[in-house]
Amino acid sequence: MKEKVLIVGSVAYDTVETAAGRVECALGGAASYAAAAASFYCLPCLVAVVGEDFEKEHLDYFAGCGIDLCGLSRVPGRTFRWSGRYLPDMIGRETLSTELNVFEDFDPELPEQLRAIPYLFLANIHPRLQGRVLEQIRPPRLTVMDTMNLWIETARDELMELLPRVDILTLNDEEARMLTGKFNLYQAARWLMDRGVKLGVVVKRGEHGSTLVTREGMGIAAAYPVEELIDPTGAGDSFAGAMIGVLAEAGDLSLPALRRAIMHGAALASFTVEGFSLDRLRGLTRRDIDDRVRSFRDLLIVE
Amino acid sequence: MKEKVLIVGSVAYDTVETAAGRVECALGGAASYAAAAASFYCLPCLVAVVGEDFEKEHLDYFAGCGIDLCGLSRVPGRTFRWSGRYLPDMIGRETLSTELNVFEDFDPELPEQLRAIPYLFLANIHPRLQGRVLEQIRPPRLTVMDTMNLWIETARDELMELLPRVDILTLNDEEARMLTGKFNLYQAARWLMDRGVKLGVVVKRGEHGSTLVTREGMGIAAAYPVEELIDPTGAGDSFAGAMIGVLAEAGDLSLPALRRAIMHGAALASFTVEGFSLDRLRGLTRRDIDDRVRSFRDLLIVE
Repeated sequence: MKEKVLIVGSVAYDTVETAAGRVECALGGAASYAAAAASFYCLPCLVAVVGEDFEKEHLDYFAGCGIDLCGLSRVPGRTFRWSGRYLPDMIGRETLSTELNVFEDFDPELPEQLRAIPYLFLANIHPRLQGRVLEQIRPPRLTVMDTMNLWIETARDELMELLPRVDILTLNDEEARMLTGKFNLYQAARWLMDRGVKLGVVVKRGEHGSTLVTREGMGIAAAYPVEELIDPTGAGDSFAGAMIGVLAEAGDLSLPALRRAIMHGAALASFTVEGFSLDRLRGLTRRDIDDRVRSFRDLLIVE
Repeated sequence: MKEKVLIVGSVAYDTVETAAGRVECALGGAASYAAAAASFYCLPCLVAVVGEDFEKEHLDYFAGCGIDLCGLSRVPGRTFRWSGRYLPDMIGRETLSTELNVFEDFDPELPEQLRAIPYLFLANIHPRLQGRVLEQIRPPRLTVMDTMNLWIETARDELMELLPRVDILTLNDEEARMLTGKFNLYQAARWLMDRGVKLGVVVKRGEHGSTLVTREGMGIAAAYPVEELIDPTGAGDSFAGAMIGVLAEAGDLSLPALRRAIMHGAALASFTVEGFSLDRLRGLTRRDIDDRVRSFRDLLIVE
């Protein structure tokens, strides 16, 4: 019986242009990527909102992944849409348009059966909404929270108030520096733990991998070498989804378990960026993932 | 009996300002860092030029490291001086002044006994000078060459001509992109091998570690987490010196040996940046290095 993981965040339709091509109105959103990645390890329960235009094909895809959709509201209006273009370096990107649509009034109201799930991933949404979720549930065994520069700039106090309720905070290097004022990422992570983050911080460094800093010690996951990068969208969300999925599956929050979890996170992120949207995650098997993790480990040094 | 490694490049006096402080006229130069780092593994033979102002203390330090100084010329004039300031992020830096001094006429003339050494590191100097060294020696078993953006811009043809004589090219990510026009570092490395680099390419990514791409496969070394970064100067040169030193010591150029070598490179780089100049390398023991490599490996994932 797979462990349940609550995943709260956005489901969107993305129009994305990269050096490798362009997709229109493709399935996206942080919670979509996280839930799909987590589904290889656990039973994700998705809490999100979509509009009437949300396609049955995509509901079927989620259901086919074994994702519990009882927390997915379908309401009048259009699904959240985002459109962006990546710079040729595939790192920088510009947002061309954001239509919040039904996401504008998103106020997660959790069905009773989702209020006592032991693993929680709060994907990148407004800290107030993240707080609203925490109010409704029994304290999980593990809460992982993501955030972004927008909330650091516009909702800093609300974000800071949440830290003592978070076990693992994930954010990228630039955001870590912005939030803490520390250039050194280890110092930034310590600063966040001093302000309440319970277990540790995962700093996502894109093409450079990720760094885990906990009270007990550190972990480093390089980025798996991707030779044909198609679309970086969703890499960080796939990373986080796989990470919490692995932890839930193992039922282990020790430092070695966390190191293993970020390695699986890196593997899922590497699959995600090999295609547009969630294309590459479709049809992927647990064996594909384990093979990649194994070949990944071989790239690292063993004396 | 330690294996000999020929190291050709600059010895300098650096004035450096970082967020952690400032040093004036401190021992520096690519060949100094590389030779000091290599000396933990092999017998470096340093080929460089210094002026009359070069202090006996620094000659004694080199000699104390077991560095062979028969190829170090001391000529009338002042030693090469460089002065720079790092930005608060400790990554960007601005050069405040460069006085080539005796380095302006540097034309490496190798003593007979240095012409048949099996391991060669051509530190970052003009490709013409690197070529001059290659003309004088019997083909080494392993030639590692470093370069920089300045030569890519101003001496590109001369640099490209050297590639077929190089086993391992080291350069940073920005330089790899500049030289090859490829954003993807794996593609950039392949491009360089297609143009002659024999064994592989090591892309140095500063605080993000390094990536090895060979014809046989890849390797990744994260950067060892440094909590108190003092001065990034010389990190890449220490990396390369340790890398070639380890390879010479082991007499092994297999992919696992190369992966081990970049890990030692990362360890030496991490020591170097913990102090100004070569301060942190002084007094370091092989045991300190092996301990760091071990704890480094523990940070990586083992299932």
